[in-house]
Amino acid sequence: MHIEIICIGSELLVGSVNTNSAYISEKLATIGLKVNREITVGDDFPQLENVFSESFNRSNIIITTGGLGPTFDDITRETVSKATGKKLILNKNVLKTISEFFEKKKIKMPKDNEKQSYLLEGAEIIPNGLGTAPGQILEMNSKIIILLPGPPREIKPMFENTVLPYLKKRFEKGLLKIKILHTVGLAESVIDEKIRKIVDIERKLEGSEVSFSILAKHTGVDIKIIVSGTDEMLIDQMIQNLKREFYNVLKDFIFGEDNQTLESAVGQLILKKRKTLAVAESCTGGLISHRLTNVAGSSMYFKEGIVTYSDSSKKRMLGVKDETLNKYGAVSSEVAKEMAEGIKKISGTNFGISTTGIAGPKPSSTGKPVGLVFIGIASDAGTKVQRFQFTGSRVEIKDKIATAALDILRMNLI
Amino acid sequence: MHIEIICIGSELLVGSVNTNSAYISEKLATIGLKVNREITVGDDFPQLENVFSESFNRSNIIITTGGLGPTFDDITRETVSKATGKKLILNKNVLKTISEFFEKKKIKMPKDNEKQSYLLEGAEIIPNGLGTAPGQILEMNSKIIILLPGPPREIKPMFENTVLPYLKKRFEKGLLKIKILHTVGLAESVIDEKIRKIVDIERKLEGSEVSFSILAKHTGVDIKIIVSGTDEMLIDQMIQNLKREFYNVLKDFIFGEDNQTLESAVGQLILKKRKTLAVAESCTGGLISHRLTNVAGSSMYFKEGIVTYSDSSKKRMLGVKDETLNKYGAVSSEVAKEMAEGIKKISGTNFGISTTGIAGPKPSSTGKPVGLVFIGIASDAGTKVQRFQFTGSRVEIKDKIATAALDILRMNLI
Repeated sequence: MHIEIICIGSELLVGSVNTNSAYISEKLATIGLKVNREITVGDDFPQLENVFSESFNRSNIIITTGGLGPTFDDITRETVSKATGKKLILNKNVLKTISEFFEKKKIKMPKDNEKQSYLLEGAEIIPNGLGTAPGQILEMNSKIIILLPGPPREIKPMFENTVLPYLKKRFEKGLLKIKILHTVGLAESVIDEKIRKIVDIERKLEGSEVSFSILAKHTGVDIKIIVSGTDEMLIDQMIQNLKREFYNVLKDFIFGEDNQTLESAVGQLILKKRKTLAVAESCTGGLISHRLTNVAGSSMYFKEGIVTYSDSSKKRMLGVKDETLNKYGAVSSEVAKEMAEGIKKISGTNFGISTTGIAGPKPSSTGKPVGLVFIGIASDAGTKVQRFQFTGSRVEIKDKIATAALDILRMNLI
Repeated sequence: MHIEIICIGSELLVGSVNTNSAYISEKLATIGLKVNREITVGDDFPQLENVFSESFNRSNIIITTGGLGPTFDDITRETVSKATGKKLILNKNVLKTISEFFEKKKIKMPKDNEKQSYLLEGAEIIPNGLGTAPGQILEMNSKIIILLPGPPREIKPMFENTVLPYLKKRFEKGLLKIKILHTVGLAESVIDEKIRKIVDIERKLEGSEVSFSILAKHTGVDIKIIVSGTDEMLIDQMIQNLKREFYNVLKDFIFGEDNQTLESAVGQLILKKRKTLAVAESCTGGLISHRLTNVAGSSMYFKEGIVTYSDSSKKRMLGVKDETLNKYGAVSSEVAKEMAEGIKKISGTNFGISTTGIAGPKPSSTGKPVGLVFIGIASDAGTKVQRFQFTGSRVEIKDKIATAALDILRMNLI
């Protein structure tokens, strides 16, 4: 089975981000259909004709998006008609639906929109509840051509209500499940070495296929396990087994799965242990509090945060000593310690987290380098401070520090 | 001139949004180069080989992204080598750069990363300041092949510092300039109505072309003015004239241009007026402080932030009265007022900003609806509180509230 998506629209080739392809490929994956290629092409008749004809030769299923509008540069219908030899025929029901769409808005239907009521000979209609252009499904020489409009908000209901059930009925033999493991604290190459033995084994289970991909972000590395097959129980088992293998080598570096974030993982742990938390931030400027409070229900354990962006604020709010600031400077292990202990004490929480560092882009006036940071954690068991040296832009460094701080907290909870 | 972008990565065919293609095509447009086709293909040797060979036949310039990593599924180098017949040769300088990259992090270079120091015979290096994979530029049979890594943050400086200057020197015929105006506080449909008269006029200047696009985000609307032509002075003049027309109708709803953010615009204003600021956040959970401190140099005016995520914290840290909390509840105009005045007073700043509301997903226990928020601003001229009712997810509502708060501050500074 070979599947291609063709995205049509000149705007996609001068800087507009294409989200339709990601949406469609993700939805197809849920019914075990895998996209082999995605092609973006402008509103240009000869170009599109080439792309479509080549794609038609290679593919069992082609899904196009865009070019179904009423204007002169909407050329998908005409091009597909020419390439397939299927005539375009006026469909009176579609014309009526489009006129009604305008009537509801108390606007006379512009003449141009009539164009949208032409269907390829033999095509079925994909109703469009949010726009004037209906989609079309054409079966031909045991190939399937699906035409969809461009706007993502129109595509989504059309895909879910019509295209997906149609394809499911027609093709679902297989299933595909995806499991994502999120790691933090290890470089991509280190992860790769550690998991090499797992991903290099050829795994064959009757009718099932296994693949992996690694996605490195600046705050961590994700591992994606993709298993397809026909037997849901076998697929689930395979995922469970593979998960176990990854956990065996990566252990606590895996902080969560699928939609979990580091802050939601931390939230679950702290809630389970019935502990509370307060944060004193300098260089991260509120980002740790922001991330913690992105989790619904975080007020159960997150009590308060203070962003002390000046020496006087560190002294007045957290009780950091003048002496410590003078002797070691604001970016120091000693100040991080006093900040963490200070916020824990005034908030009356079980944990106090602190950050003090140089987010950049300029080094400190005393010559401390960009990316240097001290992260403190005060708990009922005492206070620890860790030193890190990060790289990147100001925003990236803030991200990395916040991630490291959340991870230190996590490690104190497991 | 035929230009194609090939994006390589299986994750792009199972639901990950591809932003590289938009970035590259937009940058190429600025030097008058137009992308004809974009193709996404998985980490699959035969598939990629087909795609690359076909593309190589059609194109004058091919730019690939992805597949330059150190892992088993990074196959771009090998595929291009096979398709072009150019050998892969170990480059000792690149190997040294990669080893140094790891040395700086005090990690031994994993064996796998050696793979990244192989260059196609005759290729030039595109230095990568943010990752281990360098890019490559290969000229062959008067065609140009450019290999870039996958991560957007690595691509951007590589493209701007090396690829764009290289292509500019080689190809520049026409020019294209883009001016972006950022607005806040008006719905897309309102903006659309207000600017209709400007964008509907056909503008023809000798050899130049003008177009517009509108991008609505959940925190504001951007207007993009795109002018192309051959005469730089004419283009600049056209942009200046158009800008003036947009400012005439949208006035202060425009907060900045191009790379400016709302927080950097606010920063410039407050710095110019030599004022200082502190923030007391409840429902935004630190996001306002985080956004303000994303701006380099913000410590000049941002003194401190407090995230009071509980009643006791509001009382103890900001001096909000027990009586006020009991009578009106934490989410009330009265509490927002006391929070703003409290933070201004204890921080000794010119402005105190406060937020208290329901970020969701659940309404408050007293039945106050999700999205209800009160934003307070205390200044030397007195205190004002505004009530808003926002919609969206928890994260979107936090974003909208933070944006509204920053905008209120901005309005108090102009």
